[in-house]
Amino acid sequence: MNIFVLNCGSSSLKYQLINIENEEVIANGLVEKITESISDFKYYRKNNLELEFELEITDHKNAIQLVLERLISEEHGVIENFSEIDVVGHRVVHAGEKFSGSVLITKEVIAALKENIKLAPLHNPANIVGIEASKKLMPKTPDVGVFDTAFHQSMPEEAYLYALPYDWYQENGVRRYGFHGTSHKYVSERGAEILNKDYNKLKIISCHLGNGSSITAIKEGKVIDTSMGFTPLEGLVMGTRPGDIDPGIIPYIMQERNLSIEEVDKKLNNQSGVLALSSISNDFREILEAAEKGNKRAKLAIDIFCRRVKKYIGSYAALMGGLDLLVFTAGIGENAVQIRSKILSELEYFGILIDEEKNNIKAKEAKISSKRSIVDVYVIPTNEELVIAREAKKVMEKYIEDIVKDLIK
Amino acid sequence: MNIFVLNCGSSSLKYQLINIENEEVIANGLVEKITESISDFKYYRKNNLELEFELEITDHKNAIQLVLERLISEEHGVIENFSEIDVVGHRVVHAGEKFSGSVLITKEVIAALKENIKLAPLHNPANIVGIEASKKLMPKTPDVGVFDTAFHQSMPEEAYLYALPYDWYQENGVRRYGFHGTSHKYVSERGAEILNKDYNKLKIISCHLGNGSSITAIKEGKVIDTSMGFTPLEGLVMGTRPGDIDPGIIPYIMQERNLSIEEVDKKLNNQSGVLALSSISNDFREILEAAEKGNKRAKLAIDIFCRRVKKYIGSYAALMGGLDLLVFTAGIGENAVQIRSKILSELEYFGILIDEEKNNIKAKEAKISSKRSIVDVYVIPTNEELVIAREAKKVMEKYIEDIVKDLIK
Repeated sequence: MNIFVLNCGSSSLKYQLINIENEEVIANGLVEKITESISDFKYYRKNNLELEFELEITDHKNAIQLVLERLISEEHGVIENFSEIDVVGHRVVHAGEKFSGSVLITKEVIAALKENIKLAPLHNPANIVGIEASKKLMPKTPDVGVFDTAFHQSMPEEAYLYALPYDWYQENGVRRYGFHGTSHKYVSERGAEILNKDYNKLKIISCHLGNGSSITAIKEGKVIDTSMGFTPLEGLVMGTRPGDIDPGIIPYIMQERNLSIEEVDKKLNNQSGVLALSSISNDFREILEAAEKGNKRAKLAIDIFCRRVKKYIGSYAALMGGLDLLVFTAGIGENAVQIRSKILSELEYFGILIDEEKNNIKAKEAKISSKRSIVDVYVIPTNEELVIAREAKKVMEKYIEDIVKDLIK
Repeated sequence: MNIFVLNCGSSSLKYQLINIENEEVIANGLVEKITESISDFKYYRKNNLELEFELEITDHKNAIQLVLERLISEEHGVIENFSEIDVVGHRVVHAGEKFSGSVLITKEVIAALKENIKLAPLHNPANIVGIEASKKLMPKTPDVGVFDTAFHQSMPEEAYLYALPYDWYQENGVRRYGFHGTSHKYVSERGAEILNKDYNKLKIISCHLGNGSSITAIKEGKVIDTSMGFTPLEGLVMGTRPGDIDPGIIPYIMQERNLSIEEVDKKLNNQSGVLALSSISNDFREILEAAEKGNKRAKLAIDIFCRRVKKYIGSYAALMGGLDLLVFTAGIGENAVQIRSKILSELEYFGILIDEEKNNIKAKEAKISSKRSIVDVYVIPTNEELVIAREAKKVMEKYIEDIVKDLIK
């Protein structure tokens, strides 16, 4: 079974064609700057760069079409024709409270996703465009939606409710949803697999640290808390987002600086985080470099970022009454050796002891805790595309099973 | 040395006359509903109720005048005349970044406090009214200001800076200030005293849980984090305030429900917290009663409140790399046996083990952790008035010392 995984961002598109039987990536790549006059197009065959060029791409549909043409092209292709694509798996950011698992995408599902645009105005529209383009280009191929919020739907009420007017929840859907669910699910499950322990008996904290960052507590297979909330603004300090702040700041600053709702929203989403603290960049590589050269604001940004992660680790360990496994993933989590080291310093009280030598690795699966550490600490590169492909397979198998059941009746 | 302690709220006034040599309360009481047509007046002599009546009080100055008259009255008085009051100690909520300790109140100090009204619009105006009234009524008596924010000024930069646009900090003073400082200072110092250990060598968490709640981490005598921030809205769930929420909720809900800045501010300050969650009351006694009768929303409110405190305990223990002493104080912290029990459940991993029998106490100093607990857990009734009196004494002694030094020069 070949599954074509599509991850559409507001101006980008990532794709993989995966043979789900052996989980091999047959082709993958990305298209960036779709909304700009000249877009970047990259196409890999079995992980080797095959094609890279700049061209004019009008929209996501156009981009998907170009990708599909490559997949069947004589020179660079990997399949004969589109019938070799069995399912398309789509990453969708926000499913609201509607979906707690992956689903076959029907007209009703698309309508529900459109209803959630208000909750994820930056992400859901692009996801929907991807789904509609895929349906037009491959009308006979089933589409499966895999939601960033779904994994977190196992959270209990006391974790997802805010202490805010109750009608804001009932009428406006204001509650904690959580994001990066696909990634947290993958690395936590993979961690249990590496430890060769029962996922449903472990206390796990997974740290997805990238330009957007979130941290999740998973107790006995269920999410019991996650740092991103109603929007991806809450929780950890991020590239351009502040994470937790005093809510009272917003009315105050709107009044003091005469900011509109749109302006304050933009400040929070695009002009905060380590970018604001360092005044250098939202890119941790640049901030780390500046800090090494003695830049105080860069050092401060790193300190504040690490401090927040450390606080959440303590907080989630308290919530679960202990901790078995701590996982780091995503851009920073997989690659920033110093950041991991700083976060994990002085946590012996919590049974966490880092092995600095083992920690000196990048972008590969590795245990980084010392032998004496009670908690196992791992770096596990995330693989959201693989999770989406696996989910798509599962949904299709279930769908077929149900049809067969109906036929036998 | 007799010190008259004044704590002016927006429509109330609490007072104590303390003999600071033996720390005895000579007289105390409170005036409530000052801004309403009929006010409540209570006057105690050596802790026995002496007078209680309702009367018309025009303003804080009028209220202070009435209190002072009682203090020297033939029938109920405790002193001969006002010259027996050596200093007036004032509680002031918000000192901004200006004062990191208590100060003798001069014209310049009053001007600085007026500048901070924007930062504490509900509290500072009443505090200033109290100071001005005291200066008019006892022009020869020195006034000392003791600030709720002062204790927290020892916080490091990485604790008080938000990951928000840097000019919001530089130009608008947006940073973490923290509140209840006088209470956190008192109970943490008292805790060290009870343990007979060096305050400057301990890792302490103090939980001030009342209608307003905050929690503070004190490492080696310095505050290293506190849950209230720029305003008293942040951190724990409170009577009518939400504590931590996703900042993205505010622009969203303003748009969705067409709320003005003032309206959303009012919702956050007065219509959130356990009141919103329980839909019953902002008073924990009523909520606990309803929960016992099976009310689900009341139970939920308690769960969410306790969960948040537990998370902060874990978070601060991680930040300090351990914990020696945990203190509960204020209305809920001193009296709500079940709340303390719930917060402290399943924290053995953190070295915290409650003794349910010992915990069954109200409003008195007591150790509530079991013998096997690594962390000492105490209930310590707060005494902000005593701290204010002690501080006032210290400031006056320092002032006289400086004058003497100048004379000798």
